[in-house]
Amino acid sequence: MSEPIIDLRSDTVTRPTAAMLEAMLRAPVGDDVYEEDPTVRELEETSAALFGLEAGLFCPSGTMTNQIAIKAHTEPLSEVICEQTAHVYLWEVGGIAFHSGASVALLPGDRGRVTAAQVEAAIRPADNVHYPTSNLICLENTSNRGGGSCYSLETIASIAEVAQRRGLALHLDGARIFNALVATGQSAADYGKYFDSISVCLSKGLGAPVGSVLLGSKAFIHKCRRIRKVMGGGMRQAGILAAAGLYALEHNVARLADDHRRAQELGAVLAAQPYVAEVLPIETNLAIFRLTDEMPAETFLAQLEQQGIRASSFGPQMIRFVTHLDVDNTMVERVKQALLALSVPA
Amino acid sequence: MSEPIIDLRSDTVTRPTAAMLEAMLRAPVGDDVYEEDPTVRELEETSAALFGLEAGLFCPSGTMTNQIAIKAHTEPLSEVICEQTAHVYLWEVGGIAFHSGASVALLPGDRGRVTAAQVEAAIRPADNVHYPTSNLICLENTSNRGGGSCYSLETIASIAEVAQRRGLALHLDGARIFNALVATGQSAADYGKYFDSISVCLSKGLGAPVGSVLLGSKAFIHKCRRIRKVMGGGMRQAGILAAAGLYALEHNVARLADDHRRAQELGAVLAAQPYVAEVLPIETNLAIFRLTDEMPAETFLAQLEQQGIRASSFGPQMIRFVTHLDVDNTMVERVKQALLALSVPA
Amino acid sequence: MSEPIIDLRSDTVTRPTAAMLEAMLRAPVGDDVYEEDPTVRELEETSAALFGLEAGLFCPSGTMTNQIAIKAHTEPLSEVICEQTAHVYLWEVGGIAFHSGASVALLPGDRGRVTAAQVEAAIRPADNVHYPTSNLICLENTSNRGGGSCYSLETIASIAEVAQRRGLALHLDGARIFNALVATGQSAADYGKYFDSISVCLSKGLGAPVGSVLLGSKAFIHKCRRIRKVMGGGMRQAGILAAAGLYALEHNVARLADDHRRAQELGAVLAAQPYVAEVLPIETNLAIFRLTDEMPAETFLAQLEQQGIRASSFGPQMIRFVTHLDVDNTMVERVKQALLALSVPA
Amino acid sequence: MSEPIIDLRSDTVTRPTAAMLEAMLRAPVGDDVYEEDPTVRELEETSAALFGLEAGLFCPSGTMTNQIAIKAHTEPLSEVICEQTAHVYLWEVGGIAFHSGASVALLPGDRGRVTAAQVEAAIRPADNVHYPTSNLICLENTSNRGGGSCYSLETIASIAEVAQRRGLALHLDGARIFNALVATGQSAADYGKYFDSISVCLSKGLGAPVGSVLLGSKAFIHKCRRIRKVMGGGMRQAGILAAAGLYALEHNVARLADDHRRAQELGAVLAAQPYVAEVLPIETNLAIFRLTDEMPAETFLAQLEQQGIRASSFGPQMIRFVTHLDVDNTMVERVKQALLALSVPA
Repeated sequence: MSEPIIDLRSDTVTRPTAAMLEAMLRAPVGDDVYEEDPTVRELEETSAALFGLEAGLFCPSGTMTNQIAIKAHTEPLSEVICEQTAHVYLWEVGGIAFHSGASVALLPGDRGRVTAAQVEAAIRPADNVHYPTSNLICLENTSNRGGGSCYSLETIASIAEVAQRRGLALHLDGARIFNALVATGQSAADYGKYFDSISVCLSKGLGAPVGSVLLGSKAFIHKCRRIRKVMGGGMRQAGILAAAGLYALEHNVARLADDHRRAQELGAVLAAQPYVAEVLPIETNLAIFRLTDEMPAETFLAQLEQQGIRASSFGPQMIRFVTHLDVDNTMVERVKQALLALSVPA
Repeated sequence: MSEPIIDLRSDTVTRPTAAMLEAMLRAPVGDDVYEEDPTVRELEETSAALFGLEAGLFCPSGTMTNQIAIKAHTEPLSEVICEQTAHVYLWEVGGIAFHSGASVALLPGDRGRVTAAQVEAAIRPADNVHYPTSNLICLENTSNRGGGSCYSLETIASIAEVAQRRGLALHLDGARIFNALVATGQSAADYGKYFDSISVCLSKGLGAPVGSVLLGSKAFIHKCRRIRKVMGGGMRQAGILAAAGLYALEHNVARLADDHRRAQELGAVLAAQPYVAEVLPIETNLAIFRLTDEMPAETFLAQLEQQGIRASSFGPQMIRFVTHLDVDNTMVERVKQALLALSVPA
Repeated sequence: MSEPIIDLRSDTVTRPTAAMLEAMLRAPVGDDVYEEDPTVRELEETSAALFGLEAGLFCPSGTMTNQIAIKAHTEPLSEVICEQTAHVYLWEVGGIAFHSGASVALLPGDRGRVTAAQVEAAIRPADNVHYPTSNLICLENTSNRGGGSCYSLETIASIAEVAQRRGLALHLDGARIFNALVATGQSAADYGKYFDSISVCLSKGLGAPVGSVLLGSKAFIHKCRRIRKVMGGGMRQAGILAAAGLYALEHNVARLADDHRRAQELGAVLAAQPYVAEVLPIETNLAIFRLTDEMPAETFLAQLEQQGIRASSFGPQMIRFVTHLDVDNTMVERVKQALLALSVPA
Repeated sequence: MSEPIIDLRSDTVTRPTAAMLEAMLRAPVGDDVYEEDPTVRELEETSAALFGLEAGLFCPSGTMTNQIAIKAHTEPLSEVICEQTAHVYLWEVGGIAFHSGASVALLPGDRGRVTAAQVEAAIRPADNVHYPTSNLICLENTSNRGGGSCYSLETIASIAEVAQRRGLALHLDGARIFNALVATGQSAADYGKYFDSISVCLSKGLGAPVGSVLLGSKAFIHKCRRIRKVMGGGMRQAGILAAAGLYALEHNVARLADDHRRAQELGAVLAAQPYVAEVLPIETNLAIFRLTDEMPAETFLAQLEQQGIRASSFGPQMIRFVTHLDVDNTMVERVKQALLALSVPA
């Protein structure tokens, strides 16, 4: 193959551009364990301001920002309420139990999204010694497993109302929060009104090589700094990485609309193919679809691989395509052609 | 009220009879932390032999025997597969996360019972670093939340086959295992073929005041002894309690059939009342039923309470009746009359 | 041997007397998980009142009361300050790390006792992200490893002053607190002024077969009830055991002076033997001594065993004798004769 | 001050040089969670080969590599044996308890170094249910708290012999292992013979901005990869950071001898000052010294700060100077002059 590989497995695979690398190279740095890295500080403050929260904490991954937040909001014998396919439960190696000793109440959502009524019904009676204590609600926006689905601000507000009235904290796994903002036209600043903490990922759609920022109140972030230390997330001259995050916030947010359009285009082609049984509604940069029984997932992926196209299996007969910074119009065209040319096994 | 209270809340409320107390008084005892209590040893050996396993460990509660077993079968980053209303998950204060740092995969069962196919589908792919490692399957027989439903040996055998083939351990929460054995005519000895460990409760239907026995291989029980110590379950002259367990095994198993018949009788009356929307199938000593919307659960329980009858709320509009050693025919008759006389609010 | 075995290994080995068993048999009981056992309640209230604290919680062992208290006073990333041979650190299977995820700061004490200055120096700087947070100080009175040594109220008061000023909780492992009270003439009621929580053991010198009581404020004990549940310490008709505790509090406290006198007598004989290098000062019912190099500990114990006398090895060349309810004057005389008759290997 | 700040607080404060940044910019990268980053792989393989071990794992910090190793070598109810001032115990926020639920046996060493006899005596008897299980020994070379002291290969070999004979794992916290190798002339390849795992830090003396590598067998590193994921150490295009590590291994090892010489020079001046009570032997790049009572540590540090020189307090009256890549001969001269000019308070 002389043509470049098209990697639709995840938006985590993007490589930093020359301009981003240049920004990293020029960034002033210091020892961030001593809180002396000016670029890390700038990223933390910029992110917090953007989302209407007081403070931020730069970490090496979104798993760490999520797990630190869960740890800080709970204690052992707590319970965390989330959707049954939430990343924090399903794809973070059972970290809720491992780090926090907390139980989970798992809700069946609509493409990964839960309602205020579901959340309220899941809160355990406080006076019964047999139950853990419901302390935290986690939402994920967009929902990965839900195919990039977005929450409305109305739903978020109604869940936040339950959280406040019943005394639970509310955390947002914002691994793809910018995709949600761009797709819905919501304002980032509104999120700080509803959430006690937000995890914002820089190394997915935004294209930074490494890192996430955890946002919350000053007191919360102060507590989280010690948890980051014990988890091994205290990095030294981390400003080099933070510089990529700052660059991404400035240059790579608005362009997510292109990723969304491309996912729509792929979805339209997929929906028309005989070997596709169902395509989940496409709201952002994820296209999740189910193959018919005639087309085994392995066969499908292998045929694409022969065309230099990579994608992820996402459960029995389920496939996920992800568009991102390193997938351009030409590549989308190549994928479309490959989909049209696929042969269903006899 | 001159008539005695009828307590249908749980079979845990039974008080030891004079004959049982006499057996406790006469039991030879020693220091069980030094493994020198002859009555504890006898109970452990008797129980193990009964279920076809090698060794036993006497503990102060069924929560402890279950949680010790889960701890011994897993390590942090493990995952436990169980039904979504399993006692080990729902009513042991999130102990799976607290003690074992293990995640849970929760299956929707048929009245608390899962199938081999469900279990197999819940096992995580071993080569994916995002997932915990599936190490343990827990079954509950009878199922409390399932209304005292019983597993067939065929289902147990098919789940055991999955467990062995895929390298998972299989634990039985036998809080009411004797109810299952009596109701189905199954042999206790068959259970040792299928389960790596069994928790047998002595203080529910069997009527002992305190205690459960954990059964398994010698190596397993050896490991569990240290876990019991750290959990604070190492008791000194525990033979006094173990004597009650031995007495119960000898005298109080066959009579469980009476409890089952009484639960059936209550269920028949319940099913005929206008304020009862649904009665779950009654297989053993639990009768779980749903009230119509016209009859609030609080009103129902308050009217029974006025008649000296106590029962448990079991979710919105759900009520649980439990028959046991301290509920005789006369009392059942009183409950029937009370049910017939209940008034539905206007 | 026609003479009875003399068991000096521990005061945990005592068997309940006929009178104690009679009290157990007659005790009214209920389901203590529902907080309905009147005898358990009476024991909890009596113990709390005795020590000047608000509430109590009956548990199956002293390891459980200690570990519940530590769990309730700390959270993960806390640090517990205690003497380097404290039972809570050394003999509870690493439970501080296991249950509480807490670190330990270990102080070298004077026969198990620490000073206020040592404690204060061990408190970590609060503003340094590299350190856990010092949250709890544990004292042990009498100190087991320290040979039954007693704290003065002055020392306790000075440590309590540090705890209060620096915002740490103060817990007492009172496995042998009644030995300390009897030996020093201190008042139990004074202890409630200094300690946030006290673990009182009933199955050591007091002679009850099973159980300890954890004492503290109402809010603290409420929190501990849930921790007891998850640890598996929720017992049903536990009043049978609690009755033994109540009997012991009434009948077996003052007589501890006899145990102390007997330990003194044994110590005097030991100090005069050529094979004894050192006897720790004897303040209560423990006599800890070091053998000379000429007398291997195994030989010493084996020779005693031949005389029907059992004792414990307590480190290289160290032996512990414990006097208790089941060791009377005649037995002490037999031990003395055996000590005089021991032969040192050539 | 027109002269640059001299930062002797730690060798973690070094900023990447232009040449290092250039290497980072040019490095090929991929998604390391998918194990597709070629530069990360090269660093892992290079490091492993250097130390005679099979495989490596790149992590964001030395705290993470240490804590992952401890987690992988232990399970809850294990005990870790280490010196009482070991970084893994003292400065990683109680991570041994937090992550691993493991207890610690703390040994008093000679400037941070323990002996084989001490280690062997600290192993708990395996058959006593009251003790945790001794599973791991951690050494630190050079010892930070010991003032940069180095282990001899003979001592390491004798401790490794104990570990192997008694069935414990042996881990090396090699935060400053290259300082030890350069100072003693030992060969890195010898270390793989003795240690089951080694944590090598790249962001201290070696001057890389971020990162450590954990080394061990293939099976061990495979297990550690999942632990790294749950701790949030899975980074995406981490090759940018790994490139700095590779550059450092090539260019910044031999030059550590300069840091050592400079520390010696500072030590000689310190030893001659009236306000210095004691200077610990200087073997590598750390100079730890104790001030006389006449010179409060705060006063000492404040006077240096006025000269643009920063250092760390290291306990009451103790100060630590660290030489590193960003401290040249001119700066050392400035520090000497400042030390000579210091005024002792009246």
